[in-house]
Amino acid sequence: MTQASELGRVLIVGLGLIGGSLAKGLCRAKVCAEVAGYDVNAESIKTALDTGVITTAVYDLSKAVLSADIVVLAVPVLSMKRVFEQIAPYLSESTVVTDVGSVKAPVLEAAKQVFGYLPQCLVLGHPIAGSERSGVEAANADLFAKHRVILSPHSTTQPAALQDVSLLWQSVGAKTVNMSCEYHDSVLSKTSHLPHLLAFSLVGQLANDDESDDIFQYAAGGFRDFTRIASSDPKMWHDIFVSNQAAMLPALDQYIEQLHALREMISQENSSELLHFLGSAKQERDRFSQILVSRGLEDSVAKHK
Amino acid sequence: MTQASELGRVLIVGLGLIGGSLAKGLCRAKVCAEVAGYDVNAESIKTALDTGVITTAVYDLSKAVLSADIVVLAVPVLSMKRVFEQIAPYLSESTVVTDVGSVKAPVLEAAKQVFGYLPQCLVLGHPIAGSERSGVEAANADLFAKHRVILSPHSTTQPAALQDVSLLWQSVGAKTVNMSCEYHDSVLSKTSHLPHLLAFSLVGQLANDDESDDIFQYAAGGFRDFTRIASSDPKMWHDIFVSNQAAMLPALDQYIEQLHALREMISQENSSELLHFLGSAKQERDRFSQILVSRGLEDSVAKHK
Repeated sequence: MTQASELGRVLIVGLGLIGGSLAKGLCRAKVCAEVAGYDVNAESIKTALDTGVITTAVYDLSKAVLSADIVVLAVPVLSMKRVFEQIAPYLSESTVVTDVGSVKAPVLEAAKQVFGYLPQCLVLGHPIAGSERSGVEAANADLFAKHRVILSPHSTTQPAALQDVSLLWQSVGAKTVNMSCEYHDSVLSKTSHLPHLLAFSLVGQLANDDESDDIFQYAAGGFRDFTRIASSDPKMWHDIFVSNQAAMLPALDQYIEQLHALREMISQENSSELLHFLGSAKQERDRFSQILVSRGLEDSVAKHK
Repeated sequence: MTQASELGRVLIVGLGLIGGSLAKGLCRAKVCAEVAGYDVNAESIKTALDTGVITTAVYDLSKAVLSADIVVLAVPVLSMKRVFEQIAPYLSESTVVTDVGSVKAPVLEAAKQVFGYLPQCLVLGHPIAGSERSGVEAANADLFAKHRVILSPHSTTQPAALQDVSLLWQSVGAKTVNMSCEYHDSVLSKTSHLPHLLAFSLVGQLANDDESDDIFQYAAGGFRDFTRIASSDPKMWHDIFVSNQAAMLPALDQYIEQLHALREMISQENSSELLHFLGSAKQERDRFSQILVSRGLEDSVAKHK
């Protein structure tokens, strides 16, 4: 049976959408003795406390780290190293440390550089959930329900630490799965990072178009859904693109090559090849829809305008 | 007051998603003396009649054209010319002809070639609504509610014909707006045709990836929404890409150029330029959200998983 103190004192560093939603979900799940929250923006800490996102406001990070059982880093990827440096002197060997970064290998590397080794209680993680909304005001205790969280224990991670972090995510409704940092970064560069770059790129292009006002006036549901992720947090995505270039750029190059091939099919009116390509893509996307249905992330007959 | 015979006998040629949805909406609106439907696939005609999508099944197209007041062509863009040829001998001068094609200049050109001139009762049109679903089974009487329909009368179109086609769409809840064929094709190449090509391209690329099973397993809401339009009808989109190359290819070239520029910003870690680009794109996408809210196409606080 789940007890209120099962996970002990959890400290969330960074009260944005992800950190805030996790904190709020943990408060509701009543599996922690304390859900403490810290942010570089004092206003966010106050909002989090006032809106029941956290149980305890933290203004002195070092003191809070000293008494924490689990520390969750929910800051942009390129800020992870700085936060590791800030907390390292106050961490005990048994304090579990995890993160929510969308890129994993560079965060592991940052930890190695700061600690000089990989702490046994370090378990990197990445919840595959999000929203184009950002900030603690958008915190949603249901954000992770039915969603996957990829955990990337390293070769010397203690099983007990992995178990704690798994329990943390399961208690907010997520399903955990383990994967190496490198494999994570490769898969996510294609399912998430590249699509975000493509959406930002299209909206950026159209914004500078002479017809931009009419473009937005006569756009409908397809364009709305296709570009929704371009409303995501620019700083977060800047960090992801820059830190995951090793996986991102080859995927982007392949995409550009594919566009050139499609351009050729269209301009040459190579109907059989073009129809084949479009038909295969549709078939794959329909297969993906079935996966989404089986995961409870889409209705079997979705209604979209 | 709307009378049952206000629009007379309407004949829909092509009972796919758009033709079927228009027919179904017209039946419900009770503004036509008859809503007749024809399709090259006899099974679709039968389904349409059985499910109340049309009031009258048409198996002899020429005879139905003779008695129609308004003929709506709802076939793929590259089939329009063939249908013009089929119906031309049976059309009276006062029969209003319109279409629903996603590309307009090539359809106008096809009419000119078949008739030798532009009929005064020809009013091209394009409803800016759709779904990744296709076929008469997906017909939805509400598909056009709150959506725009762009009408492209030519220089000698009779005002009465334009009025009839406007009324046709307004009676199924759409808002009509007039625009030249060329301007339509330019704007839509950017808001609709290019995004569809980009989505088809990404899904096609990932389908051929060694990691494709994991890619789909670990994709979430952003990928789902970004790629939804890749489930659209391949034949329809083949026709649109090929027939609108004049507008599409320059937009695609500009997009590829933009991707190269972003690639450079990422690989050079040019943070200020990259952050500026992403920030501007987000700002524009947020502005577009406001437009959607004002058009009733999105809730002010949208919930997306």
